Amino acid sequence: MKTQEQEHILIIGAGLCGSLLALRMAQRGYKVTLMEKRPDLRKEIVDSGRSINLAFSDRGMKGLRLAGLEDKVLPLCIPMNGRMIHNAEGQLFMSPYSGRNEYINSISREDLNIMLLDECDKMPAIKMQFNQKCTGVNIETAQATFEDHKTGETITYQADVVMGADGVGSALRKSMLEHRKFLFSYGQDFLTHGYKELSFPPKADGEFLVEKNALHIWPRGKDMMIALPNLDGSFTVTLFLSWEEGKDSFDSLNTDEAVLDYFKREYPDALALMPDLLTEFKENPTSPLGTIKCSPWHAYGKVLLLGDAAHGIVPFYGQGMNSAFEDIYVLDQYLDQYAGDWKTVFKAYQEERKEDTDAIADLAVDNFHEMKAHTARPIFQEKRKLEIAFEEAFPTEYFSKYALVTFREDLRYSEAMRRGRVQDKAILNLIYDGKFTKDMSLRTKLDLMKQETRKMLHDEEVLEGLESED
Amino acid sequence: MKTQEQEHILIIGAGLCGSLLALRMAQRGYKVTLMEKRPDLRKEIVDSGRSINLAFSDRGMKGLRLAGLEDKVLPLCIPMNGRMIHNAEGQLFMSPYSGRNEYINSISREDLNIMLLDECDKMPAIKMQFNQKCTGVNIETAQATFEDHKTGETITYQADVVMGADGVGSALRKSMLEHRKFLFSYGQDFLTHGYKELSFPPKADGEFLVEKNALHIWPRGKDMMIALPNLDGSFTVTLFLSWEEGKDSFDSLNTDEAVLDYFKREYPDALALMPDLLTEFKENPTSPLGTIKCSPWHAYGKVLLLGDAAHGIVPFYGQGMNSAFEDIYVLDQYLDQYAGDWKTVFKAYQEERKEDTDAIADLAVDNFHEMKAHTARPIFQEKRKLEIAFEEAFPTEYFSKYALVTFREDLRYSEAMRRGRVQDKAILNLIYDGKFTKDMSLRTKLDLMKQETRKMLHDEEVLEGLESED
Repeated sequence: MKTQEQEHILIIGAGLCGSLLALRMAQRGYKVTLMEKRPDLRKEIVDSGRSINLAFSDRGMKGLRLAGLEDKVLPLCIPMNGRMIHNAEGQLFMSPYSGRNEYINSISREDLNIMLLDECDKMPAIKMQFNQKCTGVNIETAQATFEDHKTGETITYQADVVMGADGVGSALRKSMLEHRKFLFSYGQDFLTHGYKELSFPPKADGEFLVEKNALHIWPRGKDMMIALPNLDGSFTVTLFLSWEEGKDSFDSLNTDEAVLDYFKREYPDALALMPDLLTEFKENPTSPLGTIKCSPWHAYGKVLLLGDAAHGIVPFYGQGMNSAFEDIYVLDQYLDQYAGDWKTVFKAYQEERKEDTDAIADLAVDNFHEMKAHTARPIFQEKRKLEIAFEEAFPTEYFSKYALVTFREDLRYSEAMRRGRVQDKAILNLIYDGKFTKDMSLRTKLDLMKQETRKMLHDEEVLEGLESED
Repeated sequence: MKTQEQEHILIIGAGLCGSLLALRMAQRGYKVTLMEKRPDLRKEIVDSGRSINLAFSDRGMKGLRLAGLEDKVLPLCIPMNGRMIHNAEGQLFMSPYSGRNEYINSISREDLNIMLLDECDKMPAIKMQFNQKCTGVNIETAQATFEDHKTGETITYQADVVMGADGVGSALRKSMLEHRKFLFSYGQDFLTHGYKELSFPPKADGEFLVEKNALHIWPRGKDMMIALPNLDGSFTVTLFLSWEEGKDSFDSLNTDEAVLDYFKREYPDALALMPDLLTEFKENPTSPLGTIKCSPWHAYGKVLLLGDAAHGIVPFYGQGMNSAFEDIYVLDQYLDQYAGDWKTVFKAYQEERKEDTDAIADLAVDNFHEMKAHTARPIFQEKRKLEIAFEEAFPTEYFSKYALVTFREDLRYSEAMRRGRVQDKAILNLIYDGKFTKDMSLRTKLDLMKQETRKMLHDEEVLEGLESED
């Protein structure tokens, strides 16, 4: 067997996940070939009107810190301290993400990707090639074939290991799905809603038209719109709307008049900030929102899927990139343990990680409903206020589901989901049943809450204890 | 628009679902073409060693009764009153399916299919063709193309509506998945276990080697074997075993010696009844166990998926055929309401039905774990005994999860799942926490159980009530 230092890893996809993965693998001493389907985004305009702005948070930072990039990413970040809710009556109120002054960051996918590619350029062990479309991978032999967009030439590369960081449309995953000798579980699950990117421009002086340090939400029950700040003072705005036939759908908003009517009725305050609405609405594509799950992520100790290629999730928890970067962190730990034995690395990695990416996939779908509908509802607002009060008064004792998922990067997603869901159920029940009385101190309320949560967790553990005897 | 009586429905697949569907549609006055990939199983041996025996029960009967076939199916049935558990110590004990003398039936897939095909032959409105492999469906125009296995000829049929009852490998579903203008959610999810069919022969006098009126189970924690009786005195035996590398897997049982060692160790009482074990083990295929989910089941008011083609489930609740027959029953009700408007029929049908087939798919996976592991465990045996006692003493008040799913054909699967799961959780908690004391009357125990269940359902309803405001 070759020594680790000579092994050659071929990575498909030089997006966020692929470029950080390439960096980290090169740092570990592997030779890396990094292949990207699209042109080099530092030289050509590659994509526009298709990317929901990213929310960068603690789990993503874990991956960047591992590669020594913490200082490089901070200048690209705009802190968002909470959700700025624009209700149907035109009122605004801020719902903080945490009672511990924790926040998430708005970041441009392009800026972050450029930073990562520039870092890759500095590593002699990484060979990058653009305009290379993967047309298939032999998953038993780690041979990957690419077609050069510009020359039309086709070349097959022999690697020791092929890693697919090639996103939701992964070519490697397709090769695994089509491989005959292999039982591959696969799911693609679309929401009934699609999305379209729009924008608010900056003010003439480069300042922000609405509050800079917030994720703006217009929750409308069935639909919603969000806006995230950019460094140049603009906002990337995303409309989430049903595809389906019927009123207020991408299907029905098919004339300028229909679009304007809809915005006047649902988002009048935002409409006033969108001079290019009609052009953007027509020219920007409408894109689907889907969850991809599959298993196994690896085969024959030769290929491995990471990031969106392994687990595409909807964007509503702001964890797509963060979970991809955390993938690299987790993989890296198993390389510490088993480097040299890819089969064991891949198996152990999936064994731990799949449960967690399944959890964040499900949480992200849940959060769609929470954002578009619940944020506007009194009982949820009461819950949120109480949670923030708990976090402020007892910062080491209480963590909301949102905080467990987003800020507790020491906890696995699966554990954050388990505890977070039970907590949500407990707190809603207590509010609904009027168990929190007016004269009760915050301390007493938290104790009641903990007692209810403990009871529910106990019941679950009884069942799980039985299961785990299997 | 043509009147209903002249409309032409093309059905792909003349298995259990397709042939009952053809019958019912012909009874409703439609012209039906029924196309089957395989030869006519009344004339040629079509399949062997691949079919787990079927458990026919109340929901399946609903579909057959609708078509007037109740009397025709009864002679094919062998009642199974419960699970006969063969434990690792070689002891046998019977765990009844119900405290109300309810039972399920063992039935041969082939006998039932022959009966249904014979009934189709009696209907002039049904035109049946065998050896016709569907190579693709134009889902916008209801044109379906078939290749004749014997002549190699390819013909395209124009129908008003194409219904796919063509099983887990559905050609219609494939055409929907590949259709470009259409967001199709799709999932295939394989268990880590596969299965292999084996058998017990009849006694020389045609009698049964083990108890006739039971579903025999050898639960071994990780693996299990089951046996269902056939009319000729034989049993169809199915071994469920891990595919994976490692001890006791289909991978490791690759010599006669390994197979015999495994059976001697795990199933000695059964081994004594299996003279053809080694031949069958080698010659019968090992098949995967998968769940298929997809959505939508219909497109353009022109095509519809039913049965396994729409929702392939694992066999562990004995509900595969039953759910397919219930599909036909539910579809028929929407035809009563909306016949003439296929788009509305299909939409309303899926709107109701998908939630239920998703539920039975999940229940079936749960039951795999229950059968292979829980049935052998004291706390589950205690639970089961208590449930049977409740059902015997209070037959209109208590229904176990198994009874809700299997015998309460008036309840939707989704409701049976919701109530059944809460009940299971409640009863296990009460047993585990020692809340049922020795001196307590059965009535008091049931009241305690109902109180705990009500509390849990209340908590769920609080959450659901909030959700349903969406």
